[in-house]
This record gives sequence, C-alpha cells and structure tokens, in this order.
Amino acid sequence: MRTTDPVFALHRGGKMQVTPTVAMRDASDLSLAYTPGVADVCRAIADRPELVHDYTWKSQVVAVVTDGTAVLGLGDIGPEASLPVMEGKAILFKQFGGVDAVPIALSCTGVDEIVETVVRLAPSFGGVNLEDISAPRCFEIEDALKARLDIPVFHDDQHGTAIVTLAALRNACTLTGRPLGDLRVVISGAGAAGVAIARILVEAGAGDVAVTDRRGVVHPDRDDLNSVKRDLAAYTNKAGLTGSLESVLAGADVFIGVSGGTVPEQVVAAMAPDSFIFAMANPTPEVHPDVARKYAAVVATGRSDFPNQINNVLAFPGVFAGALQVRASAITEAMKLAAAEALAAVLAGELAADRVVPSPFDPRVAPAVTAAVAAAARADGVARL
Amino acid sequence: MRTTDPVFALHRGGKMQVTPTVAMRDASDLSLAYTPGVADVCRAIADRPELVHDYTWKSQVVAVVTDGTAVLGLGDIGPEASLPVMEGKAILFKQFGGVDAVPIALSCTGVDEIVETVVRLAPSFGGVNLEDISAPRCFEIEDALKARLDIPVFHDDQHGTAIVTLAALRNACTLTGRPLGDLRVVISGAGAAGVAIARILVEAGAGDVAVTDRRGVVHPDRDDLNSVKRDLAAYTNKAGLTGSLESVLAGADVFIGVSGGTVPEQVVAAMAPDSFIFAMANPTPEVHPDVARKYAAVVATGRSDFPNQINNVLAFPGVFAGALQVRASAITEAMKLAAAEALAAVLAGELAADRVVPSPFDPRVAPAVTAAVAAAARADGVARL
Repeated sequence: MRTTDPVFALHRGGKMQVTPTVAMRDASDLSLAYTPGVADVCRAIADRPELVHDYTWKSQVVAVVTDGTAVLGLGDIGPEASLPVMEGKAILFKQFGGVDAVPIALSCTGVDEIVETVVRLAPSFGGVNLEDISAPRCFEIEDALKARLDIPVFHDDQHGTAIVTLAALRNACTLTGRPLGDLRVVISGAGAAGVAIARILVEAGAGDVAVTDRRGVVHPDRDDLNSVKRDLAAYTNKAGLTGSLESVLAGADVFIGVSGGTVPEQVVAAMAPDSFIFAMANPTPEVHPDVARKYAAVVATGRSDFPNQINNVLAFPGVFAGALQVRASAITEAMKLAAAEALAAVLAGELAADRVVPSPFDPRVAPAVTAAVAAAARADGVARL
Repeated sequence: MRTTDPVFALHRGGKMQVTPTVAMRDASDLSLAYTPGVADVCRAIADRPELVHDYTWKSQVVAVVTDGTAVLGLGDIGPEASLPVMEGKAILFKQFGGVDAVPIALSCTGVDEIVETVVRLAPSFGGVNLEDISAPRCFEIEDALKARLDIPVFHDDQHGTAIVTLAALRNACTLTGRPLGDLRVVISGAGAAGVAIARILVEAGAGDVAVTDRRGVVHPDRDDLNSVKRDLAAYTNKAGLTGSLESVLAGADVFIGVSGGTVPEQVVAAMAPDSFIFAMANPTPEVHPDVARKYAAVVATGRSDFPNQINNVLAFPGVFAGALQVRASAITEAMKLAAAEALAAVLAGELAADRVVPSPFDPRVAPAVTAAVAAAARADGVARL
C-alpha cells in the first residue's frame, strides 16, 4: 500500500462530516435548538407523528446500508473495509441529489438479522439504500424491507444499474431508429444487476430478454435454479432458448454484460449487425470497447475512461431526491421506469454513438430524474405530499 | 401547537446535514473519491483492519442511540418524537467537541434487541452515546455493550450528569474550604442519573452518599430492590441510614436532586449549615433556588436561567473527543473522574457561589476535558494511539 498516493491522501480522516444547519452562538440559541425549547417539538411529534418529516432531518436523510459482502469487484471484504465506498456513496447522494446520507455497515450477514436491524433503525431515516450485498440475499432483504417499511427501500446495485441501462438502451434505439420491442437482448450475469436489468427491460417492452449465468441461459427446465432465477425464467426468454452465452448471442441485437466474464471476438462478430454492446464489468469489460466498436452501433461500459459510462450516480441521487420530495412510501416500478425515461431524455437532440449516456456532471440529470420520480410517485399513489 | 414559534421555525427541516469534506468537481475527483480509486482504500483496510480509523470517518463519528423511552422529562414518547433531541445532541457534539454524530432512534425497546442492533451497527461508528433510555434497562444495555464492543460506550444521562455534578461539587468544596471526604451527601432519585452520581461521588471519595427512591433510602435490608439498587446499597450509605428523604436530609451537607419531586422548605432548613443544594429536576427544581439560597452556601440547578447549571454539554463533547483522539477502547471510571477534575479546574481562581460550573460557551471547557480524558485513557491502558 502506498499511502502517499493521491487516493490515500484524499481519504485520510474520511470524506464526510456532519454539520449543524442552525446557529449555536449563545444560551438563547441553545434554549431553542436544545432544552427547553426542543421539548415542544418532541411533544408535537408525539401528538402528530407525521410532523417528524417537517421538524427533523428524517425526510432528507438516507441510510446507506451494506454488510460488505459484495463490494465493488472485491467481493466479501467485510463492513469496515466497505466503509470508503459507503462514504463515497453518501457524498454522491449529497453532491448530486442534495440528499443527506449516512453509511451503515453492518457486522451481520444473515437475511433476517439485516432485515430486523434495518427495521429497527428506520425511524431515524427517510429512506434505505441497500448497497453491495451479495446475491441472492440482496433480493430477499429488499423484498422483506419493502414489505415491512413505509419508506423507500432501493437496492442500488439492482435498480440504479437497471435504470441507467434502460436509459442508455432507449437512447441507442432512438439514435438508430430501432424500436425497443424489436430487440433481442442477452444479459450475461444473473446476479443483482442482471436480474434487475432483465426485469426493467421486460417492463419497458424489450422484444425478448434472455439471461445467462455460469451454466448458460436461465430457462424453466433447468433444475439448478434458486427462487429468484426461477422467477426470472418465468418472465424472460419467450423464445425458449437454451445453451451457452456464446450460442444465444448469435444473432442477438443487444449484449449486456454484468458478469465479469470475457466474450471472444468471434462471438461478438456473430451478433446481429449494428448491435448494442454494453460491457459493464469493472475493471475489465466483457468485450473491450475497441473490439466492440468493430461490430456494434453503440458501445457502453462501466468505466469512466470510455464513452457511455453506465454509472449509477446518474440515477440514485435523483431517485431518492424525488421520492423524498413527495414523501413516497416506496419506490415503485413506475418510478424506476420514469427515472430511466427522464435520464434518456436529457440527451434529446444531442445523441451520438458515443453519447447515449449523459455525464455524471451534467447538471440537468438530477433535476430531471427528481422531477420524473416525484411525478411518477404521485401518479402511482405512493406520494404522501 | 404554534408552528409560528421561533422553536418550530428553527426546527423546520431539521438541524443538521451531511457534507462532503472532499471536492467532487469532475471525473478526476470522482475517480479518487469513488471508483476506481476507492477500491485501493477498501483493499488496504481489508488487509489491515486498523486502517479503517485512518481512512474513513469512523473514528470521528458517534452514534447517538435512543429508543425514545425516557426523553427529557417527557417520558416514553417513542423514537420519532425523540429525534429533535437526538439531532440537538448531535449538533452539540459537533459544536462543542468537533465530533460528528448521527441520531439513531430505534423502534425496539427490548434490552437484547437494542444491544444486538447496536453491536451490528458498530463497524460504522467510533463510539456509542446512549441517550434517553429508561432505567433500569439503560444499565443493562450499557453493561452489555461495553462487554461486547471495543469502542467507547457512554450513557450520557448517567455519566455526563455525574461528571458535571462532581465537578460542581469539587468547586463548591474548594470555594468553601471543605474536603469532599467530610461531606454527607443525599441523592434524591435512583434512576440513571442518581445511580451514576452516587457511583462517581463514592469513587471520588465523598464522605458518605445515601440515595433515596420513592420508598426512602436505598439500604441492603430492603426487599424491593432491583439488581442495580442492590449494588447501590452495597457501596453507598456507610452510615446505614433508613427512612424517608426528609428524615435523612436532616443534618446532611449536600442535597442532589435528580428525581423531580419537591423538598419542603422546613426540610431544607434542617440540613447542616452552609449546605450545597443541587436541585436538578427540569423544569421544576426540587427546591426553588430562591428558597435554597436562604440556607445553602452553593446552589445549582438543571436550568439555564439560574446560575450554576449542571449541563451535560460541559462533559460529553470533550469526553468523546478525548476518547476518539487516542482511539480508546472504552470510557473508564478514571477517564470520567479526570473529566470532572478538568472541568472543575477551568474555573480555578474564578470561583464564586454563583460560579462553580462554567458556562457551556466557555471555550476552555471542551479542550480541557478532551485533553484530560485522552491522558487518562493512556494512563488507564485503553488508548490505542
């Protein structure tokens, strides 16, 4: 470890702090913000619980919850070692969405333990962003928390990735004049991201979506599927494909890689003409962009040093900002679809093959996503403001 | 509720926020603070876990944990209604101690549930400040957490109050030339504050300390004591007093009220001459200061509008700042005693009957307490820096 690196220098002491938003200069300030004045606010909330949203920071603060089991590409490195990522996430929430966020890295990994712990914490938070929790536990945990909490719960590795992927795909379609409903999509990887991308693409009307894991295409006749993959088999792969990733990629219109594997050039060459290749594994894309560009009309990756980075930061700050703005009780499928539409629309009139995804620093992104998510929450009946 | 009040106006939207301490202006900043750069820091912590203290905010952030069961004088108002107090506490931590703090108001009240929850959260925090948890659960919870965690755990309603009370008593002794060892002390109230004050006064060498609850003096022959009060009976009340608060106050040198009851003037009049009366109940002191001053040499209360306010904010910011500064694994009795000494010493040479406790805004307080606690942690062998 070279602690003289700029990365380590920047991380020394952490990347965030808590600051008061009220003055505390003298006894008079203290008597308003703390005792005795604060007792009036406590009493008011005890009488009318919904006032907690008005008179505390609850409705603007999100818990970034992890157990450190699937951190970046590093795997199960534990809660302490995950903290630099969770702090990074927290400051991205603030920087891009104006949302406060607090890292909560847990020392337990059992589904029930994590669910119970988050339920117990929930009074203090306006939302829960689940992060870097390994599959398939991440699905169970999110489902259980959504059932038990009346605040937004969002597993960003699933839905953030899915929203940005759908936005990129919509823009690729617009750019090339191809309807989403005509596309045959192959997703390599049936983990958190793969499952969520498959779901949102089916909801958005993609022609057909097949998902592959290490043993090939997920289909109902396989006897080695967990419950999440069985569900996936039920609503994907209308064509009833079987076989390996390589075999089903032949003639496919879209490759979405969230697996970390490698796809040989001859397999890429066998895809349909003018395909879309989103090779999102980090740090090594499943198909190198230089290779992908030889065959594909649009190429995207997960890396910041190539065009069209599928970066979750384009979604989660606005998704939570929108949900919190209208005090949504949940983040629904319609809200995710609206986020993707809004994100895609930011680049209307500016599309190019190397520009189907906005830059994270495009100042139009978060406001557009925020407004779309808030409107969708109202339309979907989950807004409380 | 009059939401046009200055108190409600000040509380709108809460009293705190999270802010980044690093710049996030462009893709280069993003690649250092988040992916891909952050992965190097995660890997380093996974290899050498103690680096979490250097490269995250862990060692500067305290969880302010409550279940909302004993909030101010309001009682069991629940976690949401407790949040304004917890936010207030959090900003006092920052303002006076430079310590970041995050409110964690829990929806569970069982001892085991709270303990398990805090243990699971602990990787993210450098310390745990327990707050407004009702007795006797607060004792069990603190003991269990101290046994299971290697970060400081401190129930402020106990130890913060005890530290400031001891400091005030030391200064009252200095001012009047009376040794602490000569004083017979009566504490009214055997809840969190009363038990902790009794303990620290005995440790500090007070002459004799008797504690009363609703049924009179706590003594070993009573058959109605819970385990905390049985312990208390074993190390207090050397004189073997029995009977009511009123009876044992006759001839006593010090009254410390943390009960909320009322002591009649004739009982106060029967105390020893030049007594010390610390009537700390809020908002109504057990003895009104105007009455107390007729008999006592030194009078203190819990209120900011009378002289000598016993205010925990004089202790907890410096206690945690000192403990975190040396990465203490616990807050020991010696550290609390050192905090009280340092707090008392701030007023050396400036003592007066209406000035045995410094102002919360005295800028000498937090640095003095911080330094003393850090030094005591080193001397006590619990410092890791």
